[in-house]
Amino acid sequence: MILPSIVAIAQICASLGIRRAVISPGSRSAPLTIALVRHPDIQTYTVSDERSAAFIGLGMARQHQSPVALVCTSGSAAYNYAPAIAEAYFQQIPLVVFTADRPPEWIDQLDGQTIRQQGIYGKHVKAGYELPVGQTEMDFWYATRQVAEAINLSQTAPYGPVHVNVPIREPFYPEKNEEINFDPAVKVVRTVPGSLALSAVQLQQLQTEWNGYERKLIVAGQQPLHSELSEVVGSLSQQQQIPVVADIISNLHPASAAIKHADNFLSAGDDEAFTALRPDLLITFGLSVISKNLKIFLRKNRPQAHWHIQPSGTAADTFQSLTRVLHTEPASFFQQTKSWEVSSRAAGFYQAWATKEQQITKKLQTFFEQPEVSASEFQAVFEVLKQLPDQTNVHLANSMAVRYANLIGLPGHQSQIEVWANRGTSGIDGSSSTAVGAALASDRLNVLITGDLAFFYDRNAFWHNYSLPNLRIVLLNNHAGGIFRMIDGPRQQPELEEYFETKQSLKAKNTARDFGMEYHQLDFTRTDTADKLNALLPGFFHGSSDHAKLLEIVTDSEANASVFRQFKNMIGKQETED
Amino acid sequence: MILPSIVAIAQICASLGIRRAVISPGSRSAPLTIALVRHPDIQTYTVSDERSAAFIGLGMARQHQSPVALVCTSGSAAYNYAPAIAEAYFQQIPLVVFTADRPPEWIDQLDGQTIRQQGIYGKHVKAGYELPVGQTEMDFWYATRQVAEAINLSQTAPYGPVHVNVPIREPFYPEKNEEINFDPAVKVVRTVPGSLALSAVQLQQLQTEWNGYERKLIVAGQQPLHSELSEVVGSLSQQQQIPVVADIISNLHPASAAIKHADNFLSAGDDEAFTALRPDLLITFGLSVISKNLKIFLRKNRPQAHWHIQPSGTAADTFQSLTRVLHTEPASFFQQTKSWEVSSRAAGFYQAWATKEQQITKKLQTFFEQPEVSASEFQAVFEVLKQLPDQTNVHLANSMAVRYANLIGLPGHQSQIEVWANRGTSGIDGSSSTAVGAALASDRLNVLITGDLAFFYDRNAFWHNYSLPNLRIVLLNNHAGGIFRMIDGPRQQPELEEYFETKQSLKAKNTARDFGMEYHQLDFTRTDTADKLNALLPGFFHGSSDHAKLLEIVTDSEANASVFRQFKNMIGKQETED
Repeated sequence: MILPSIVAIAQICASLGIRRAVISPGSRSAPLTIALVRHPDIQTYTVSDERSAAFIGLGMARQHQSPVALVCTSGSAAYNYAPAIAEAYFQQIPLVVFTADRPPEWIDQLDGQTIRQQGIYGKHVKAGYELPVGQTEMDFWYATRQVAEAINLSQTAPYGPVHVNVPIREPFYPEKNEEINFDPAVKVVRTVPGSLALSAVQLQQLQTEWNGYERKLIVAGQQPLHSELSEVVGSLSQQQQIPVVADIISNLHPASAAIKHADNFLSAGDDEAFTALRPDLLITFGLSVISKNLKIFLRKNRPQAHWHIQPSGTAADTFQSLTRVLHTEPASFFQQTKSWEVSSRAAGFYQAWATKEQQITKKLQTFFEQPEVSASEFQAVFEVLKQLPDQTNVHLANSMAVRYANLIGLPGHQSQIEVWANRGTSGIDGSSSTAVGAALASDRLNVLITGDLAFFYDRNAFWHNYSLPNLRIVLLNNHAGGIFRMIDGPRQQPELEEYFETKQSLKAKNTARDFGMEYHQLDFTRTDTADKLNALLPGFFHGSSDHAKLLEIVTDSEANASVFRQFKNMIGKQETED
Repeated sequence: MILPSIVAIAQICASLGIRRAVISPGSRSAPLTIALVRHPDIQTYTVSDERSAAFIGLGMARQHQSPVALVCTSGSAAYNYAPAIAEAYFQQIPLVVFTADRPPEWIDQLDGQTIRQQGIYGKHVKAGYELPVGQTEMDFWYATRQVAEAINLSQTAPYGPVHVNVPIREPFYPEKNEEINFDPAVKVVRTVPGSLALSAVQLQQLQTEWNGYERKLIVAGQQPLHSELSEVVGSLSQQQQIPVVADIISNLHPASAAIKHADNFLSAGDDEAFTALRPDLLITFGLSVISKNLKIFLRKNRPQAHWHIQPSGTAADTFQSLTRVLHTEPASFFQQTKSWEVSSRAAGFYQAWATKEQQITKKLQTFFEQPEVSASEFQAVFEVLKQLPDQTNVHLANSMAVRYANLIGLPGHQSQIEVWANRGTSGIDGSSSTAVGAALASDRLNVLITGDLAFFYDRNAFWHNYSLPNLRIVLLNNHAGGIFRMIDGPRQQPELEEYFETKQSLKAKNTARDFGMEYHQLDFTRTDTADKLNALLPGFFHGSSDHAKLLEIVTDSEANASVFRQFKNMIGKQETED
């Protein structure tokens, strides 16, 4: 039989809003698996490679901003979750990780699939819980209380992963034909999350300080697409003449007049020209920014004050100038500031940024009109972004895909495109799986733009039995980690090809065949160019399909590097190391 | 330029005996990479998927019982090492894990590829070191001292993995054409490892106790092949009439008259018959045993005393009867006991075990003579083991491959075959990579016997540019985790196929093509049987090849389960859950 506390775990998951669970096969975890699979309100998926399973769960959880359960068996299975858990932690995505375990008396006794699971995710979970192995009434209360606490914590700001270690004794399986009865009335603690708001007095103080600064700059970090926030920030920017710098992962592309190419124009070496861009007050929100040039610029040209807005928690001092952390929602804060005083020098400052943005946008257009760059992966990303249907999740893999896309930017009219990237840890280990999770959890079109290293690394993203008719993969295959050829440090080393680019010979045709994907190929090293890509994309994106479609664009690593050098010369870009 | 402390790390690795390093590409780790690659005494390999890279390093380290360095960049890369590190910890294999990191002031500041790496491997490393980021003379001493300490610790009994976290500031790369000068005279602390020996007084006490027990049983756990030990244990067993129970992973198959089929004959439910097999004194050494029936038998029929022999550290009480831990080398201890008193009841006890072993060995032979079992994966393993050339490493993947092989056993004349299995954590995550590591680190033939789940899970084992002419893979593809159909618990559940077996449709042909392997296929679901396999194996094993060869044997999961049930019926085997 399945223990009552295990049955209760499934019920509590459902009661507290978990709608999806990603399960990896195992014997010790069998009771949890069976309870979750049989619960009518939880959709379960089975994925064998735990590394991919966890990133798939992360994709689902981010899609709905709602916790997803992961279930694995005891032993090293749990460790294979760790990369996705770290990503979830730094991207603040709610995951509730259940790891089955031996009962404590059998740890370190040389039994199979037994490691030291307590606290295994260290500082990369919001909390780790250890359920009791006994089945007394007290144990039941203790177990169910902890599970509810864990789920609540995962969805309390800042959201994030939690770990519930579940020691389980045999038997693992119900009797044949045994029914499981869930009790929807099982007692659960529910958190009613309040919204943090600043008081009138606090706002008054901030307003006074605000009035003291003439040149204000807003910089947005990574966040999901949030139409209301885009709207507010856009109108604030116009009214108050405050430039808004928005990396592609900030999903602020719909905000009117957002500065999307700061990474390009801040790279020119002329410090003099930059003084006009230096803010007195920097206001930020969201998580990481991609643009290293922006970081360097702001660290060099420190504002007098830097306010970071986030609903709770300790803030990062990314630009080394942080003076205030405002614990409130960005949208509500910006709504308030709309009516605050506009400084007399705001217009000039705003125009300085706007001019830079206009200039670079024009340059970029001109750059991609040159026939000699049309067989590069950079241009491929340009064309793909241009043709992206609205209502799409575009997943940008680390590392060149997301960089190219950030240099290009998304136009504002594509206002329902949401940009995804695993920039919590910036690993290449789960980009495909994350896209798969998003595709499984919604009807949106999901377009993954990835390099070959990230793609083959995470091939097990597709190793399961779920069809993905709403997934499109654009694979930029230069047979290497192309980023290392873009920067002088490694490019000049004799170890470049073997140890940095790590040349790899795979093409994706066999992978596509293995997983039943519709496969297309363009070879930019031969006669194919962006024209052919442009002709192909509409059918690729819009044509219906039973399963994922994969477009492999083969390019030449040296040619890509040469095009990228041309681009840097055009914009006067400096070298960056990472 | 490359910092002096980084250059020194490479030199200290070489000075303290590290001959191989497995490196994954990255920018922050570039100085470490370059220093190791350029050191003349260290062979470096580059493998992109850190999970596979770490298991490859583990395979190399186990091959030579000597530490191997791993190098990865900062961020989630480090977490992808974790499964192999846990395996190394429990299998006591020396790995020296270098993870590049941001300097401490930039942790949690939303920079890319930055997680909380200090102590990241928790209780699965012998120690974690944090190098200083500064470059003063004191820092240099501190860094080099810690690196030497880490390497020494990894090869102090019990061997195991150690973690060295290396925060590195830019620049990461040497100047173009800059030369690195290694100083072989760099100061290192060297550990001179003593050998633990028991004193005459201690031995005297043990001898007295020994004389008080009539029925003595030796049980060997997992260990590398150790000819001298096999020899001593074999002759002790004969002289003293002490049965020696040896799972296949104990590598005691060369020991004369070793009991290799305890897992088979202890499974019969007749407790009465077992009383004759119950020891008074149990003597064990090595790590885990596979046989669950043996564990159950010994836990039920507890000896009066249980001595476990291991050179150092806390011992596991696997059979719940441990009374003494002897801190010495098994071979030297057994050498001493050869001359101790033989009890009057030893011969009868010895004969009881020997008879069981003879009976079951005969039954097993007969079983595999039946034509109706000849298209099963069980028989496939039987034939493969029989034809294994001597001087071979045979790698048994979790979970059915190693179980089948353990039920079958290896004959004593194959005395130079060494059995490998990742039974530290018993995961399926790195069996292929471990075999690849062993193949890269020696000229031995390496034969991997694996199921489809373990094989496809760890396909990135082959995703690198090294040829493996000495690797042979026998893939038992039943398109599922077949073990779940073998046991009643999951077999009776409606979730069997989807959530336990997790049916998967891949065949390996595309994978073999991707990686340039010579591919063979037998289809046991059609007309092929063991005869055809037998005809194929000599050429498969002995025929030379530029790269790995892969033999895929397609079988039917239900047919396999049916054959296994017949087998269980024959031996009267009880159900086991894991």
